[in-house]
Amino acid sequence: MKGPAIRELRITPIAITDPPLLNSVGIHAPYALRTVIELVTEDNISGISEIPGNEDINDLLLQAEEIVLGTDPFQLNQLKSKLFDRFGDQGSDVRGDNPWDDRKLIHVYSALEVACMDIQGKVCNRPVVDLLGGKCREAVSFDAYLFYKAKGAGGVFGYEVDPDATGWAAARQARAQTPAEVVAQAKSMCQEFGFTSIKLKGGVYPPEQEVAAMQALYQAFGPDCPLRFDPNGVWSVETSIKYGREMEGILEYLEDPTRGQQGMAEVRKALKLPLATNMCTTSFEDIPSSIALGSEDIILSDHHFWGGLRESIALGKICQTFGKGLSMHSNSHLGISLIAMVHMAAAIPNLTYDLDTHYPWQSEEVIKGGRAKFEEGKVAVPTQPGLGISLDRNMLNQLHQNYKDCGLKRRDDTTEMKKIDPNWEFKPIRW
Amino acid sequence: MKGPAIRELRITPIAITDPPLLNSVGIHAPYALRTVIELVTEDNISGISEIPGNEDINDLLLQAEEIVLGTDPFQLNQLKSKLFDRFGDQGSDVRGDNPWDDRKLIHVYSALEVACMDIQGKVCNRPVVDLLGGKCREAVSFDAYLFYKAKGAGGVFGYEVDPDATGWAAARQARAQTPAEVVAQAKSMCQEFGFTSIKLKGGVYPPEQEVAAMQALYQAFGPDCPLRFDPNGVWSVETSIKYGREMEGILEYLEDPTRGQQGMAEVRKALKLPLATNMCTTSFEDIPSSIALGSEDIILSDHHFWGGLRESIALGKICQTFGKGLSMHSNSHLGISLIAMVHMAAAIPNLTYDLDTHYPWQSEEVIKGGRAKFEEGKVAVPTQPGLGISLDRNMLNQLHQNYKDCGLKRRDDTTEMKKIDPNWEFKPIRW
Repeated sequence: MKGPAIRELRITPIAITDPPLLNSVGIHAPYALRTVIELVTEDNISGISEIPGNEDINDLLLQAEEIVLGTDPFQLNQLKSKLFDRFGDQGSDVRGDNPWDDRKLIHVYSALEVACMDIQGKVCNRPVVDLLGGKCREAVSFDAYLFYKAKGAGGVFGYEVDPDATGWAAARQARAQTPAEVVAQAKSMCQEFGFTSIKLKGGVYPPEQEVAAMQALYQAFGPDCPLRFDPNGVWSVETSIKYGREMEGILEYLEDPTRGQQGMAEVRKALKLPLATNMCTTSFEDIPSSIALGSEDIILSDHHFWGGLRESIALGKICQTFGKGLSMHSNSHLGISLIAMVHMAAAIPNLTYDLDTHYPWQSEEVIKGGRAKFEEGKVAVPTQPGLGISLDRNMLNQLHQNYKDCGLKRRDDTTEMKKIDPNWEFKPIRW
Repeated sequence: MKGPAIRELRITPIAITDPPLLNSVGIHAPYALRTVIELVTEDNISGISEIPGNEDINDLLLQAEEIVLGTDPFQLNQLKSKLFDRFGDQGSDVRGDNPWDDRKLIHVYSALEVACMDIQGKVCNRPVVDLLGGKCREAVSFDAYLFYKAKGAGGVFGYEVDPDATGWAAARQARAQTPAEVVAQAKSMCQEFGFTSIKLKGGVYPPEQEVAAMQALYQAFGPDCPLRFDPNGVWSVETSIKYGREMEGILEYLEDPTRGQQGMAEVRKALKLPLATNMCTTSFEDIPSSIALGSEDIILSDHHFWGGLRESIALGKICQTFGKGLSMHSNSHLGISLIAMVHMAAAIPNLTYDLDTHYPWQSEEVIKGGRAKFEEGKVAVPTQPGLGISLDRNMLNQLHQNYKDCGLKRRDDTTEMKKIDPNWEFKPIRW
């Protein structure tokens, strides 16, 4: 038995409006880049996926086309081994020092895997979650993901401000710099989406100021609201220990205070506080040293760079086996990624932490029916075949036009920051 | 979307004729017990599986019925958590000291999982391998699994001898005790099935005699034929090191020379010889200490006691992640287990060792079309939906009648041996 093969691969780079969120290496550009992938089989079943937009990744997707065409979408092991045999020796394909992951091949395989799983679900007339072992929960919980916002509040770098906005729409335009402003952002986001846990992306201001923000959140939301804080690796080991101690009683976990498994392990030993990572343990190759060193308690999974949904399920089993926690990392994304995350998270028994998502920060969408709904901080697991979503072609075309117009080719928050502050420079450890 | 639920669970204990093979704790009874499980959905799709026969496991299957009925066969995570929530606290549910695994709950879940995967494949119109990531190979390789045969050759304990038999049918009746007799058994089995690697189950005779058998096999088959030897844990650490050294140049791997991860790790450090296990690392709970101690190089998977096909795929990923090899263990079994092993092995990229199977030692079958075919030591991966096999109800009834007639309720090779040698006793370490 051999099912209908893939006859077409469509690669559509898009640019979505993104607010000027700050992080340890710079600032979000006015547009976040994503790439939408469509696979179409000989019998016209299509599958979709979404990955971080990057010209090099898109080039590799194009090179992979000749391997993809003619492939049965159920033969994922074969697809993976062909791709890695062909492109696996590109020595320059490394994660890099940024908060985001710049590897090409693993993103290409993930893009194809998710789209194939969407096709598989449609062929089988089952939601993707059912092909991953079935639902452990009916809906998946997310946290309120807070960001420091550019000094000039909204209205910078092409980010349009709506002066009539109210509620969250107004709050996400507002400046967020002081502890009180961070608390205001949190309250508005939690009210809008029903989130019951909070993460702050730090590494932007001096440690004292950011620790004060976490203390203010703790005061405002109380001990029943799990809090997370992420300096994105720019603290030294000493700084991580010093300021980590000040947050011992108030955090659910501290994410990537410093760089590298060795440094993380040193911090871990000194603190009574779980550590999480999406920077020092980001591939299966990193797992053995993570276990040996004890560099973190919780891995922040991300199917975009762990190799798709099935590999993420295996990561879940590894975490369960070794007593590590599992949560989920996010970049700026749209609904295709969100829904893929939901299917996968629903199928992992031990994914008990709320997931990160940038989703509240964007306002556009490429899936039919518009923006996904959060109820009490949760997104319901779709029950339709495959991912259970389909493309809004008008929106896809518009966002592709944005991509062509904006001129951005890859994420580079350091370069964006230099446009405002010419003295800004990337520093692996800032404090 | 909710698919048709399971409306019936059929549990059929069977007894299959089994030759008087010897091992470290005794001798195979004249019958090997298996249990055949059938699940039938509301829309009359049925799935089957086969597990080691054991009255206690069958009782637990019967208790599990109320959880199973009404379950959607795609909701494996829910099925597992319900079973473990309900039955997981039975403290007596341990592997035991025998070469085989006596745990009940994990066998029950595995039986149900495989039958559900069979149903899933039929619902999706796809072979099970395609729901596990797809084929890494078109056929799965097995080794020639040799056994020492009871002192009195064939004709003991109800094992009928055909005096007119030729070829393998004759050879499997013959005595196998001396190195020359072991080589003769190997030659006949390899000729009949096309196997190109060999394993001897040892732990029966003094180490000198068994090492001599391995040396004779090496002489007879040469360095291109991988050889494995398995004393089933009855050697001390000292004996394992002493006799392991004598086999350093000639074995592909040495399986479970001694008991426990600690002892295995000591042996491993002393030998230039990979160690394999299906005794000291047999569950996900055992993995962390296995990694920390380095107790073995190769895990012998077995979906019957690792929790089914999907969990075995995860075990494969763990082995790949930690640089451990993966091969596969066997007990006396029929074609349902064989074909489930083939689907699973075909879907694991790093399952590069030939699998063990007792299959050549049995002659009955419960699947339509009769005994599975080996070509050049390999079994082709089925291409039909589900497992791609179905029950021969006449044979199932006959073998169930055998079960009722034979009076055996569980495997107990020590008790069987005492029937011949009243002084025989179980010894965890014999040499």
